[in-house]
Amino acid sequence: MQIRKSNKVVVNRIEKVNSELLTLTYGAIVSQIIKDSDTVIEANEQLEKMGFNIGQRIIDEYLSKAEIKQCRDKIDVAENIGKVSMQMFLGVTAEVEVLPETDKIFTFNLHFTENPLNDFVELPEHLQGLNYSNMIAGAIRGALSTIHWIATCRFLKDQLKNDDKTILQVEMIREKFKDDE
Amino acid sequence: MQIRKSNKVVVNRIEKVNSELLTLTYGAIVSQIIKDSDTVIEANEQLEKMGFNIGQRIIDEYLSKAEIKQCRDKIDVAENIGKVSMQMFLGVTAEVEVLPETDKIFTFNLHFTENPLNDFVELPEHLQGLNYSNMIAGAIRGALSTIHWIATCRFLKDQLKNDDKTILQVEMIREKFKDDE
Repeated sequence: MQIRKSNKVVVNRIEKVNSELLTLTYGAIVSQIIKDSDTVIEANEQLEKMGFNIGQRIIDEYLSKAEIKQCRDKIDVAENIGKVSMQMFLGVTAEVEVLPETDKIFTFNLHFTENPLNDFVELPEHLQGLNYSNMIAGAIRGALSTIHWIATCRFLKDQLKNDDKTILQVEMIREKFKDDE
Repeated sequence: MQIRKSNKVVVNRIEKVNSELLTLTYGAIVSQIIKDSDTVIEANEQLEKMGFNIGQRIIDEYLSKAEIKQCRDKIDVAENIGKVSMQMFLGVTAEVEVLPETDKIFTFNLHFTENPLNDFVELPEHLQGLNYSNMIAGAIRGALSTIHWIATCRFLKDQLKNDDKTILQVEMIREKFKDDE
């Protein structure tokens, strides 16, 4: 499938759809990916990769619609991801916890008390290793990649695994250089 | 994956997410299904089946949130599908064209001038037979099945195939009997 840039007139309006349709569509793709994967690890990777591609594209929408100014610093980037972008795309916000910088790696945790992708889902015993919402982790990594940051993103806690909340940890490792392309 | 009923307190609020995330997530599942299918016909069937499952579930959300009264007749059903449900789930509405009833089959066409699932998509030459948004057709069939109607739903026209608009035709064939279960 070729994906082209939208040729719609850009209006400063954020089009909204019902979250349940997204939840169910996302559930369908997770089921499909599980079916296609030999292991849960492979399924996690596939979901992350899919999210990476989505994040690379969706950041355009974010930058054009969210009317944010250029981020002042990395804390500002973290706040924008946790508050503005999550609200915009998933209709929820995350608390942002910035950790002390070590080895020049800037790390922050996103604390979610709800995640619309998880609605109606229960992980069966044999899929306890699944990072069900790994698309979100991938999308953050993809979006950061587009603004020239090499990052990692992973789940530390997940309400689907009976944790009290869901925590995503983002490590902004270093800026991308030309050779990284 | 087990899908359970939401145990959230039902509030009369329709949660909204950004349509682009749905568009891209849907694009990802179409790509995955094409990869998994031997033929375009099989891909169309898979998308329709996926939509059928979604439609069976989503009608609960629709009936609880849309505050519609019981439909008076089949024309009322058609109007609710084209106007209320499409607006609720996809953020667009369809013009409803009711055709003369033949052989007790009630037929109506939904005319769309836009379809958020199609955004950014171009069908390559070898996928011209793909009914890209077949999830919508399946979802209508699934929703009608839940309210005890056997129906078919198919694309007559599709803007992705350079038609001037997208037309979905729904045939409400007959009420389901107990033996159909």
